[in-house]
Amino acid sequence: MKAVRVHAYQEPPRYESVPEPALQGPWDVIVDIGAAGLCRTDLHIIEGQWEPIQHPRLPYTLGHENAGWVREVGSAVTTVAPGDAVILHPLTSCGLCPPCRVGEDSHCENASFPGINADGGMAERMRTNARAIVPLGEGLEPRDVAALADAGLTAYHAVRKAAARLVPGTHAVVIGAGGLGHIGVQALTAITAARITVVDRSEEALALARKLGAHHTVLAGDDETTVREALDITGGGAHVAFDFVGEQGAELLAPRMIRGRGQHYVIGYGGEVRLPTIEIISREIDVIGNLVGTYQDLVELMALTADGRVRLHTQTYPLEAAGDAMADLAAGRIRGRGILIP
Amino acid sequence: MKAVRVHAYQEPPRYESVPEPALQGPWDVIVDIGAAGLCRTDLHIIEGQWEPIQHPRLPYTLGHENAGWVREVGSAVTTVAPGDAVILHPLTSCGLCPPCRVGEDSHCENASFPGINADGGMAERMRTNARAIVPLGEGLEPRDVAALADAGLTAYHAVRKAAARLVPGTHAVVIGAGGLGHIGVQALTAITAARITVVDRSEEALALARKLGAHHTVLAGDDETTVREALDITGGGAHVAFDFVGEQGAELLAPRMIRGRGQHYVIGYGGEVRLPTIEIISREIDVIGNLVGTYQDLVELMALTADGRVRLHTQTYPLEAAGDAMADLAAGRIRGRGILIP
Amino acid sequence: MKAVRVHAYQEPPRYESVPEPALQGPWDVIVDIGAAGLCRTDLHIIEGQWEPIQHPRLPYTLGHENAGWVREVGSAVTTVAPGDAVILHPLTSCGLCPPCRVGEDSHCENASFPGINADGGMAERMRTNARAIVPLGEGLEPRDVAALADAGLTAYHAVRKAAARLVPGTHAVVIGAGGLGHIGVQALTAITAARITVVDRSEEALALARKLGAHHTVLAGDDETTVREALDITGGGAHVAFDFVGEQGAELLAPRMIRGRGQHYVIGYGGEVRLPTIEIISREIDVIGNLVGTYQDLVELMALTADGRVRLHTQTYPLEAAGDAMADLAAGRIRGRGILIP
Amino acid sequence: MKAVRVHAYQEPPRYESVPEPALQGPWDVIVDIGAAGLCRTDLHIIEGQWEPIQHPRLPYTLGHENAGWVREVGSAVTTVAPGDAVILHPLTSCGLCPPCRVGEDSHCENASFPGINADGGMAERMRTNARAIVPLGEGLEPRDVAALADAGLTAYHAVRKAAARLVPGTHAVVIGAGGLGHIGVQALTAITAARITVVDRSEEALALARKLGAHHTVLAGDDETTVREALDITGGGAHVAFDFVGEQGAELLAPRMIRGRGQHYVIGYGGEVRLPTIEIISREIDVIGNLVGTYQDLVELMALTADGRVRLHTQTYPLEAAGDAMADLAAGRIRGRGILIP
Repeated sequence: MKAVRVHAYQEPPRYESVPEPALQGPWDVIVDIGAAGLCRTDLHIIEGQWEPIQHPRLPYTLGHENAGWVREVGSAVTTVAPGDAVILHPLTSCGLCPPCRVGEDSHCENASFPGINADGGMAERMRTNARAIVPLGEGLEPRDVAALADAGLTAYHAVRKAAARLVPGTHAVVIGAGGLGHIGVQALTAITAARITVVDRSEEALALARKLGAHHTVLAGDDETTVREALDITGGGAHVAFDFVGEQGAELLAPRMIRGRGQHYVIGYGGEVRLPTIEIISREIDVIGNLVGTYQDLVELMALTADGRVRLHTQTYPLEAAGDAMADLAAGRIRGRGILIP
Repeated sequence: MKAVRVHAYQEPPRYESVPEPALQGPWDVIVDIGAAGLCRTDLHIIEGQWEPIQHPRLPYTLGHENAGWVREVGSAVTTVAPGDAVILHPLTSCGLCPPCRVGEDSHCENASFPGINADGGMAERMRTNARAIVPLGEGLEPRDVAALADAGLTAYHAVRKAAARLVPGTHAVVIGAGGLGHIGVQALTAITAARITVVDRSEEALALARKLGAHHTVLAGDDETTVREALDITGGGAHVAFDFVGEQGAELLAPRMIRGRGQHYVIGYGGEVRLPTIEIISREIDVIGNLVGTYQDLVELMALTADGRVRLHTQTYPLEAAGDAMADLAAGRIRGRGILIP
Repeated sequence: MKAVRVHAYQEPPRYESVPEPALQGPWDVIVDIGAAGLCRTDLHIIEGQWEPIQHPRLPYTLGHENAGWVREVGSAVTTVAPGDAVILHPLTSCGLCPPCRVGEDSHCENASFPGINADGGMAERMRTNARAIVPLGEGLEPRDVAALADAGLTAYHAVRKAAARLVPGTHAVVIGAGGLGHIGVQALTAITAARITVVDRSEEALALARKLGAHHTVLAGDDETTVREALDITGGGAHVAFDFVGEQGAELLAPRMIRGRGQHYVIGYGGEVRLPTIEIISREIDVIGNLVGTYQDLVELMALTADGRVRLHTQTYPLEAAGDAMADLAAGRIRGRGILIP
Repeated sequence: MKAVRVHAYQEPPRYESVPEPALQGPWDVIVDIGAAGLCRTDLHIIEGQWEPIQHPRLPYTLGHENAGWVREVGSAVTTVAPGDAVILHPLTSCGLCPPCRVGEDSHCENASFPGINADGGMAERMRTNARAIVPLGEGLEPRDVAALADAGLTAYHAVRKAAARLVPGTHAVVIGAGGLGHIGVQALTAITAARITVVDRSEEALALARKLGAHHTVLAGDDETTVREALDITGGGAHVAFDFVGEQGAELLAPRMIRGRGQHYVIGYGGEVRLPTIEIISREIDVIGNLVGTYQDLVELMALTADGRVRLHTQTYPLEAAGDAMADLAAGRIRGRGILIP
């Protein structure tokens, strides 16, 4: 079959023929890929940024946002059958380690992360396991949901963790209304009644955010003005600021946009949070990390999607055009999420 | 009456005669001070460190850890009567603003903070209000509990917030077993069954910690060794690390001593937390601010104290010796907490 | 001034002249009533059903759902001023007792409950206190919101407590879509993404529920059929069943409509819950009581109302027609909530 | 091998030879039984009381509280190896159904319940699966912990659910200090600082409860006196009442022993809870069901046991004396928990 594979860092991945994946254990599942989302993390992988964290063995196949149809199942799998339309949680969790036992499967101690440290879904087929499989409800198509498997899941996970604080009358600030942020706005609208203020450098992104439910938007300019506007709108600071950027200074702005007892949710990455401890304690503020989402998060996100509460804006490419898609992504030419179709 | 007052920053406070405080509003309460705790924050105040945060009008009376006996109550106060032994929550909250309405009275929007931005308890008498008054149960004496009003309250508040995570089998690391930390260890023992590892530079402090319930101790040496020992003991990192130091590098060690999904509780201050966002997200860790505690926290802490679960180690001075006491504190010559008795 | 007062149980209340209320304490507030909601509880009061619980001194003025404009404030009140449009939390809480200190002010140990055990708002003016006052945002009129002060608050309180369980993909069953239930449906739609199934004996009530956001409706017929339909729709039972009826058998149906680990929220009253303990434990189900709501709940409900997420259907009467309004309510002739305008 | 098997309800089970269990699936584990706890549920099973709930196929082997050593593991099991000392969670959960995915594995939709609806541990060996296995820490022996697998787990589960409410200064009432209740008292002491009041008809049970940490005890006599004493001790009612009896009237007493906003935890069974809805709502009280515990609960309970915080009082019998043991249990002749040793 064909796949898009990394052979060396700093080099473009190759579109090439590889052997088909085969079942290895009783919980394995082989999936015919219907669509694989393209993500900024793919660019970071190629740059070598994830090497020290995940140290995958090269070459391997990219693609960690996958959906498709079940092709073959291991001997112990009874929850799905060949032909079922499915979306794949990005991790293959074990179901036995301590985090798995309490539903924190995204911290599974024995997981593989296809597309990050094992062969992923930018291919005709891939291997995952039964614990990664979320069946798609009627009316949901792999190509419409694939990019929710990681980008959407991460955005939803953060919003879901914060939801208990975002009671009616509270303020949420969303920094960055791109691929993740625009899902975040939809998730906020779906599961909270908070007032949503979106901050972005692009007026076009803000226009989309307003359409998706943002109550206020701030066109990011110089830092002082941006912060002052956010503080004015939120009556002195948000209860929760979601930082979908996490670099280029956004990670330093977010703490300034929250009120006392407020929380800075870190979702994007690349920069460094710096906070004097006297500020952390005198305002009693928190910095909250967010990593992908749990299986249950993905189930909930699919329920929202089936109800029409979350919708992805996508741009599709054939799998063999993965290189073009990556170039478009790097150059900021993709509107919404790029999707590869084998 | 006599009081210990700050006239100018960087100068020693004066022990001098001042007019008696008088009731001003219907919820006011005048308290005969039985004991006032001495705190490192008093030194920071004299240095001028709190000026930009609280900007008090000089001169004013120090003392934010107070207990004593009710002397006089305002026209609307029915909850206490003259003669009642009481401990004072450090803030005089309003009971009407949004934080007060949900029990977050330490974030009251209309509070005064006697000893910090209004006349405090290093005096024969002070004015507070009915919402700051916690009656002492039988057997509790003002001099035994005064220093719990702020130092103890802050330590308890942090432990209480973390308690739901510290289920049996989890690990808590306590950095700094001084005035606050040794209350923290007792609070952990009282309300959780977590395994407690205490890190300190003083073998004497560690010995006290073991006596109070710490399961393991680490004598802090060079950073690498200290972190490695903590990771070994905790099986890869604590679930929660309580940083009672917050400066001199402790604030950078704490995040290295926690596991994935772990939390760094910031309680001490002076330094700066610096965390790359990729580390925050890839480990999904949190930094949690802590400020004093709520009225309910103080009620709970008094219940633990009445049950003998929390005990302060103190060294008493007469009020007129406040200068000596502060010199002893600055020089590290006080064991436990210094207490001033008018 | 004129007021509607109970002189004896089982007798119609009298519309009569009474002295104006006066300020008594520093936190008191006199309000010019703009509208007072009429509630089934008013009928129960007249029947004498609340006598053993609240034992008010007769005669007294009815009306526990009140909104209007501040007329006069006590010496210590700074949060509102004459002329402000306000809605009144039904209880005058003290701000000092244990429940008040943790935000559970609806369980205040020193509260009065105007309209239930003290003079209420079916009058030109009434006395309450500063802790009961929620200022109305721009665009909200007393007559539009008065009935939210108790009926709406109670419905919202129950939904709010259950919201953390009602994640996307879960099922909520609402039994009874009358005055409280139709607010419950709106609250569910506003703060959860649960699928909502409404059960009622009236096709008209179900039509309104669908308009307000219910995904499914069940016309209640014989018990077996009703339960079977609810189980079919909810895939084996709701995660939470809100029983806004609480009598006439609804309180026995609700537990049959929930799944394992499900919860039966009791809001309406009159009947008796009967559950074999083996059923409670083998299914691990809960029965959850609900009483009015907190001040914070009312603040949140007003935020939802200001955002247009909750809307009352009302029918207004002049205050002097209170007797007609009560007769209409008893006979089921009121659509939505009856509102008395002084 | 030998096993104790039910052939017909209302007849004594037979001690007889049966074939050895064999691995059937890749996650299966065969365990050499070290000890099997004897439980009142075993008597209820023989009476036929669980037939309509679990409808097991007769004959089958009793024993749902099991510990021992791993003998053989399925092809996919990597978490334990032959020879490991283990305790068995009573259910063999699937790890794939919705409750399993959020850590609520005791509600697994595909579980078997050995000893209840499949062959249990009153035998030399039994089959379970990898998700039921909790390795024992050093120093823990199967015979010392076996009865914690169900009785202890159930008691701990209830206390754990209630722990967040049982902050310092609150009151817990424990009704029934027998096999489960005496574990409940130890769990309360270990993970909360609540004041514990134990109610029982046996002075001997109360003496044991005091030794294990109960602060107050009430010898149950006539209902009115018993309730009044409990209310006096708890200052008007407990915050949580744990009903380990659930029959013979205890289930009606418990709600009378709690305060407003209090909770009645149902753990024992046999009777019927009856509560007028007006009482449920006017006091805003809850009835909370409890069923066994989760895998995580069992892990935590083993951590407490390893720390010496929970200790079982047991009386051992050889497996062939199961009949005698059951007769002793039925006659109230066993002190603590009966344990069968193959």
